Amino acid sequence: MAIEDGTPYKYNLNFRNLFHTSEELFGSREIVYLDRRIKYKDFFQRTRKVCNGLKEIGVQEGDVIGVLDWDTMTYMELYFAIPLRGAVLHTVNIRYPPELIYLTMAHAGDKYVVIRDEFVPLIENYASLFDFVKGWIIYSDTGKIPETKLSPVYNYDDLAKGPECDPPDLDENTWATIFYTSGTTGMPKGVTFTQRDLMLHMLALVAETKLEPLSLTDDDVIMSLVPMFHVHSWGIPYVSVFMGSKYVLPGRYDFGRILELVKNEKITFSTMVPSILYMILTHPKVDEYREALRGWKVVVGGGALPRGLAMKAREYGITAIGGYGLSETCPVLTIAVKNDRTKGMSYEEAFDYMISTGVPIPMAHVRVIGHDGTDVPRDGATIGEIVARAPWLTRGYYRDPEKTKELWRGGWLHTGDLAVVDPLGYIHIVDRERDAIKSGGEFIPTLVVENLISEVPGVGEVAVVGKPDPKWGERPVAFVTRRGNVTESDVLANLQRHVEAGRIQKWWIPDSVIFIDDMPRTSTNKIDKKELRKRLEGS
Amino acid sequence: MAIEDGTPYKYNLNFRNLFHTSEELFGSREIVYLDRRIKYKDFFQRTRKVCNGLKEIGVQEGDVIGVLDWDTMTYMELYFAIPLRGAVLHTVNIRYPPELIYLTMAHAGDKYVVIRDEFVPLIENYASLFDFVKGWIIYSDTGKIPETKLSPVYNYDDLAKGPECDPPDLDENTWATIFYTSGTTGMPKGVTFTQRDLMLHMLALVAETKLEPLSLTDDDVIMSLVPMFHVHSWGIPYVSVFMGSKYVLPGRYDFGRILELVKNEKITFSTMVPSILYMILTHPKVDEYREALRGWKVVVGGGALPRGLAMKAREYGITAIGGYGLSETCPVLTIAVKNDRTKGMSYEEAFDYMISTGVPIPMAHVRVIGHDGTDVPRDGATIGEIVARAPWLTRGYYRDPEKTKELWRGGWLHTGDLAVVDPLGYIHIVDRERDAIKSGGEFIPTLVVENLISEVPGVGEVAVVGKPDPKWGERPVAFVTRRGNVTESDVLANLQRHVEAGRIQKWWIPDSVIFIDDMPRTSTNKIDKKELRKRLEGS
Repeated sequence: MAIEDGTPYKYNLNFRNLFHTSEELFGSREIVYLDRRIKYKDFFQRTRKVCNGLKEIGVQEGDVIGVLDWDTMTYMELYFAIPLRGAVLHTVNIRYPPELIYLTMAHAGDKYVVIRDEFVPLIENYASLFDFVKGWIIYSDTGKIPETKLSPVYNYDDLAKGPECDPPDLDENTWATIFYTSGTTGMPKGVTFTQRDLMLHMLALVAETKLEPLSLTDDDVIMSLVPMFHVHSWGIPYVSVFMGSKYVLPGRYDFGRILELVKNEKITFSTMVPSILYMILTHPKVDEYREALRGWKVVVGGGALPRGLAMKAREYGITAIGGYGLSETCPVLTIAVKNDRTKGMSYEEAFDYMISTGVPIPMAHVRVIGHDGTDVPRDGATIGEIVARAPWLTRGYYRDPEKTKELWRGGWLHTGDLAVVDPLGYIHIVDRERDAIKSGGEFIPTLVVENLISEVPGVGEVAVVGKPDPKWGERPVAFVTRRGNVTESDVLANLQRHVEAGRIQKWWIPDSVIFIDDMPRTSTNKIDKKELRKRLEGS
Repeated sequence: MAIEDGTPYKYNLNFRNLFHTSEELFGSREIVYLDRRIKYKDFFQRTRKVCNGLKEIGVQEGDVIGVLDWDTMTYMELYFAIPLRGAVLHTVNIRYPPELIYLTMAHAGDKYVVIRDEFVPLIENYASLFDFVKGWIIYSDTGKIPETKLSPVYNYDDLAKGPECDPPDLDENTWATIFYTSGTTGMPKGVTFTQRDLMLHMLALVAETKLEPLSLTDDDVIMSLVPMFHVHSWGIPYVSVFMGSKYVLPGRYDFGRILELVKNEKITFSTMVPSILYMILTHPKVDEYREALRGWKVVVGGGALPRGLAMKAREYGITAIGGYGLSETCPVLTIAVKNDRTKGMSYEEAFDYMISTGVPIPMAHVRVIGHDGTDVPRDGATIGEIVARAPWLTRGYYRDPEKTKELWRGGWLHTGDLAVVDPLGYIHIVDRERDAIKSGGEFIPTLVVENLISEVPGVGEVAVVGKPDPKWGERPVAFVTRRGNVTESDVLANLQRHVEAGRIQKWWIPDSVIFIDDMPRTSTNKIDKKELRKRLEGS
């Protein structure tokens, strides 16, 4: 794009422009993946080389490029190189069953696919179906790619062998990413984001991390444990590199290795869903890492942070706080940082607020509204739906105008999550709308009940779901995994005490407690309540 | 603007949207002016009431509103209320002579004017000339406004008596501010900024203040000592409120009162031009405030930070660092924070970098280029011009397409400042282009010479300017104010030692040193080199 001499430069919020300062100020900072360490300076050079390589093999602006990978350096490069090229990063959910992988790739219209060697067999079985793909870019940690019947095939490493590209200076509203999110029923829905969305989401998080107890600086060492195929790993790779922090990629999740990384790389900040924190804290060797875990700051989102889990984390000196967002919201909307009302409190004093859904991050406008569309009172009791506006929310579901309209009813993004707001301004999700239990015409806030059960000694994870009931419509049932000795009557007696203390209603107590060995999980490691409900139907 | 049901909300980076979180999270934080303290919550309410009042008296979107005021709570309210209304804030330079005040107000086309009572006589004298003004909004700290022949007149306080407005949700490219900047010759030029410019400049500074040695948080207490009529007080009022910091307004500058404010309000961060820091540190009572000044962080811009001044500040435990920008750049482009190369150093070890022009703030792309348009080598010696791109630069001079074209030659904003880049990446301005001395066909970097003179014991302020010379074209002359005993031969002998140490060239030594009582100053408190050159012409 030639600029007429004397014309003011129109600065777009795009990938080409926003990382200049990181490269300039923090060129020697590191990105780490397994035994590879690369300096920002070399990393950015490499992203421009890959950008050039993509162009060389024919990738056009607007082409969708699927990626099938764990959290690797290659993925990190593509997080930058694909938007730099003006193409669209499709982070394929590798935890999906093969047919869903195929269906989402077909729906997104992936023109090119970058694929880690180990996933080649998965795709090869259906090679003939992928007639919409114009090129397969394979990579391997060894540099040597496998024989394959996929065609045409490129070696990813060859893409980085040419010169650096001079990336196009794109309009900030250029489409940058797509990925798919599972609903309760039917085909996953595609959500899309622009370069501007990603950059503003990043700027908001950079400002947010100033607040206590996060207080992050460029000296922090960051590792996101939200998979890179899932909602931009919460944008943390971008935030880290923009701030100049050392960033660590965990590869395929192995909790022994994750503990080693926390220790050896001196990780100070991470993000994750509750199950990941649970798996770390119940790892057989976790006690050997007590010293390394002390001082670790963790934002837990993608599901409420159970009291019991946060307390367990605190025993290890970890500061765990809540966070919240959806695939549709890029994702972050709230984090449970301190506001002016909780400011003077210690983490322990502010515990109920720190483990809540949180308060809006900068620029986000997050409300909890009743059926009449007005904000619920801040009484910690009145339940409403969380709705939001922010400069980074998806404009809608890809190729699905009907569901888009439903999402954006009244010009507010409807999250489908039910919550209360307490007098100090913290939002507390009490239920996902789809997981809500309606008993006798009234909601039972399952997350409140789960929280109390999570505190019972011996309880591991817990999920309360609704079982169809001829009299009440639904009645709650608790699924529990054990960390020690605990019985159904322990759980019920404990809840009974909370009823007596006036904390919960008597009819919120589950009809039964079912002990299981492991929680079923979704492809993003959240507890799969849909699956649990299915089990009840069969009972 | 009615939003069609089911349509994604288009979030504009405007004043209505971006301060939601501050109001929500930090509602009890304070803004302080003299003996008035107001909480954010009440402040934001009041800005919406003023916005409503403006609408009631007839202010339309796009109307330019002039403001004549010191750094007061009223000005602070208008910094928000005028853009909220969709009108244009014209920060009139009250230090200009009356005819320039008139000319700039006429050029901007001020439809309404908010005016502090004490400035009414100044305007009244020329009342008939202001036929373009449709209303005068007068305010007084006492609430009672003076009799005046200006008409029609409104009492500012009445504007805040109605309900809160529901501000229009403006396109982010809506024009938000205008002010005038003096060139070397002729009429001041008007520079304009949009709501988006101001919001992105703010977001960049919020991210910047994470870096050492600033490391600002919402617990910092901030007072900008850059007048609010001048280039948005460097955007600090917005940055402070966005971060949730307590913000202090100094009113009309009185250095005794400023020292009291630093002590009583526990100010931790300020911004200012070098002269203001000089005046604070040479105040007769400064030593009584040693304890209060310790730990104060100060960014000094709008003129290079002289070594001697920074050393003097350090004696008081103040951390002074350089910063840089122009009226045309909103203004901030660089601040002398630590990058990965200076990171391990103490302030003293990094001193030469900390007092430099600095490194680019986030998102800013700042280059130093030679005549061929390529970046100068990072050798600390090769001189080039600073050019910039950032998402907040003026699109040009108001109603002056010719000068705009010159400003934006080749699609880069040309600052007219000459600088070198050192091997660690720090920019050092060696001269404003218009202040440069060319002697025998080569540049003498006056700021380098001034820095060395500033270290000579007894020297107060110093300015080196060019005197026409029949043989060399120009020769340098040093103007110096005294803080103690110092003679011309002290200064020259000192420079001679630097020549012998190889730090400067022999021919850079000024031909003479002229001692004066006070430096002449521009309307923004910078040393007025134009005036000094004039004095030489007469000599």
